[in-house]
Amino acid sequence: MTKNRLEAFSDGVLAIIITIMELEIQVPEEPTWQGLVAILPTLFSYLLSFLYIGIYWNNHHHLLRLASGVNGGILWANLHLLFWLSLFPFVTRWSDESGFAEVPVMVYGFTLLLAAVAFYILQRALIRDQGADGALAAALGRDWKGEGSPFIYLAGILLALLQPLASMGVFAIAALIWLVSDRRVERFVGDGRADLGRSENDCGLTK
Amino acid sequence: MTKNRLEAFSDGVLAIIITIMELEIQVPEEPTWQGLVAILPTLFSYLLSFLYIGIYWNNHHHLLRLASGVNGGILWANLHLLFWLSLFPFVTRWSDESGFAEVPVMVYGFTLLLAAVAFYILQRALIRDQGADGALAAALGRDWKGEGSPFIYLAGILLALLQPLASMGVFAIAALIWLVSDRRVERFVGDGRADLGRSENDCGLTK
Amino acid sequence: MTKNRLEAFSDGVLAIIITIMELEIQVPEEPTWQGLVAILPTLFSYLLSFLYIGIYWNNHHHLLRLASGVNGGILWANLHLLFWLSLFPFVTRWSDESGFAEVPVMVYGFTLLLAAVAFYILQRALIRDQGADGALAAALGRDWKGEGSPFIYLAGILLALLQPLASMGVFAIAALIWLVSDRRVERFVGDGRADLGRSENDCGLTK
Amino acid sequence: MTKNRLEAFSDGVLAIIITIMELEIQVPEEPTWQGLVAILPTLFSYLLSFLYIGIYWNNHHHLLRLASGVNGGILWANLHLLFWLSLFPFVTRWSDESGFAEVPVMVYGFTLLLAAVAFYILQRALIRDQGADGALAAALGRDWKGEGSPFIYLAGILLALLQPLASMGVFAIAALIWLVSDRRVERFVGDGRADLGRSENDCGLTK
Repeated sequence: MTKNRLEAFSDGVLAIIITIMELEIQVPEEPTWQGLVAILPTLFSYLLSFLYIGIYWNNHHHLLRLASGVNGGILWANLHLLFWLSLFPFVTRWSDESGFAEVPVMVYGFTLLLAAVAFYILQRALIRDQGADGALAAALGRDWKGEGSPFIYLAGILLALLQPLASMGVFAIAALIWLVSDRRVERFVGDGRADLGRSENDCGLTK
Repeated sequence: MTKNRLEAFSDGVLAIIITIMELEIQVPEEPTWQGLVAILPTLFSYLLSFLYIGIYWNNHHHLLRLASGVNGGILWANLHLLFWLSLFPFVTRWSDESGFAEVPVMVYGFTLLLAAVAFYILQRALIRDQGADGALAAALGRDWKGEGSPFIYLAGILLALLQPLASMGVFAIAALIWLVSDRRVERFVGDGRADLGRSENDCGLTK
Repeated sequence: MTKNRLEAFSDGVLAIIITIMELEIQVPEEPTWQGLVAILPTLFSYLLSFLYIGIYWNNHHHLLRLASGVNGGILWANLHLLFWLSLFPFVTRWSDESGFAEVPVMVYGFTLLLAAVAFYILQRALIRDQGADGALAAALGRDWKGEGSPFIYLAGILLALLQPLASMGVFAIAALIWLVSDRRVERFVGDGRADLGRSENDCGLTK
Repeated sequence: MTKNRLEAFSDGVLAIIITIMELEIQVPEEPTWQGLVAILPTLFSYLLSFLYIGIYWNNHHHLLRLASGVNGGILWANLHLLFWLSLFPFVTRWSDESGFAEVPVMVYGFTLLLAAVAFYILQRALIRDQGADGALAAALGRDWKGEGSPFIYLAGILLALLQPLASMGVFAIAALIWLVSDRRVERFVGDGRADLGRSENDCGLTK
């Protein structure tokens, strides 16, 4: 029940974050195709942030499915993650409105970086709670994506000193890596997947 | 559990989309009946988008009820659908603020079209997961509405080149067709319906 | 499961409605007590609408608890109710910004009236689904509040032709009647209440 | 079921409150580090309010977990709490936009105070429903934080007459006390914690 409520609250926050970003999209000044083309960068940054929140929701969902329970520390580690994610609409808006200027793009990257760190902390807290021989530790043994992403974000942040738009490209590539590799994990899990709908306590990734 | 969380997240996003559109309604300039009449087109387009999100929520709900489980591909197919639906407030606002000009109305239609395509993709992903002999494939065998709607949207989009307001009428008619036929399906399902509240795993539409 | 998802979606929409009204409150022009006093009417109308959404959430919750299941008609009756409730922030904002002018206050009253009618329709749909000898029909046999409120709203609407502020007082009194009498129902139900937390399918109000 | 829906609705409202505050953050006027530094007070007050809503969510969650059931009075005590919490974004915005002037900071403190009182009332209603020998009464016997916080808020409110910024510091310290001591409670509960994920009706804090 406690775990369910943590998921429900996180779902609520993520659903709101992913949706209110849309409120920030200014309608084109002219009701023409040119007007629409002019806001394409805005739509692109909206799509990118939508993708990132979607990835976090997916990963959060997989993570919690493997967790055994929650404690006070986990509740706060989760809120810490939600805090950084809640800043996505703000940094999306700022980098978009500034025409992807150097500093706002770097701040966008720092927010991605800190959200990744917060996700890592949450992961550690859940593993510590479950024990080193639990399903989580087994499944996350080879978490090269989780540990590699911060370096990509750092690279993107540094690149912004030279070419902010290229940084956004790096952040987009990092998102696509998550998307594509998500399917690969899926294939790896294989048959376990087919049971998801039937067994409530099925961990799916245990050996 | 996984399926439940997918539904909960989708419910959250749809609940927010359907509600924040209201935030876009500007109050009338004059506190008079004339002032209210002047924003009737705004209220009409709010109502139409409310109806569409309501239809999608209903259909999503029926679809997921028949599904056996979810996998990574289904999670992303669902997020893809939510992405297009999340643009409804934006395209509603734009076509309304432009006084239903040609291009914004066409973009409104394209968003309807792409949401319909995304729903179709989600449907296919769920059927593939369940197998061709599952409850979903059986229930959706004769899905003339799902396959017909895109053509209505396309017709509406083309009509906007001549008369954008008439396009909105076409989109409204498409919504009404969904509404009315929803009841017909209901009647067809018949007695199975009465069991919905009692059996959790009841598929309702299986033969 | 179907009933749960209807509740979850309604909870989401009501939670958003009750919360986004807050976004409409303009901060006082001066950071002084006089500034705060100047927006007291705004805060009052916010409180009133908060109360109404709270009452609807409470009633919706009691209603659904007694229902056996849902069907397509019930889903749409519920969306119909949510539509009128979703207009609360809009009519609250309009009547507040107009300084409680005649027409906006009447429109506020009409929205209350139509929400009450929509709730009545939902109630009827649920009773028809369950049968005249079900728990709902028994519990709602003496629904003088549900049937009386529309007349209070009508009186408030007519009063606005003379004195709009007095109408707001009438609407506030109607809300207080719901609040106070809610406790009375509670006391009437008596011992059944103590079981709410333990039995999931307990209807509480059946004879 | 009734208790679940109360939690779900509260989760929804709290998730929205914690997230829409972000909408209030104005992007810096300049896309520079100086621009970001200039809005640090805004970000600080956003963080503080995020922390407070997070604390309330945590406490609400622990409180409800120990509760046996809900009744009409509890539903309204809960809505009363949500009302004061729903004003957080408003008072955050006001005190921030006024540059933390005396009156807005006092109003911020009063909102904290009234939310604390509302939480206390909810606690009492739940204990009265469960009985003096229930899990809640046992767990909350030594609730020095709940009873001490209002005095800290009062001190902060009075301090604003001299130095409003120092008041914000006091409110921040009160939040940190909650955060830190939350962990201490955790440690005290000890082994009971490990069972949270497994037993649905486990009260955890009963003797």
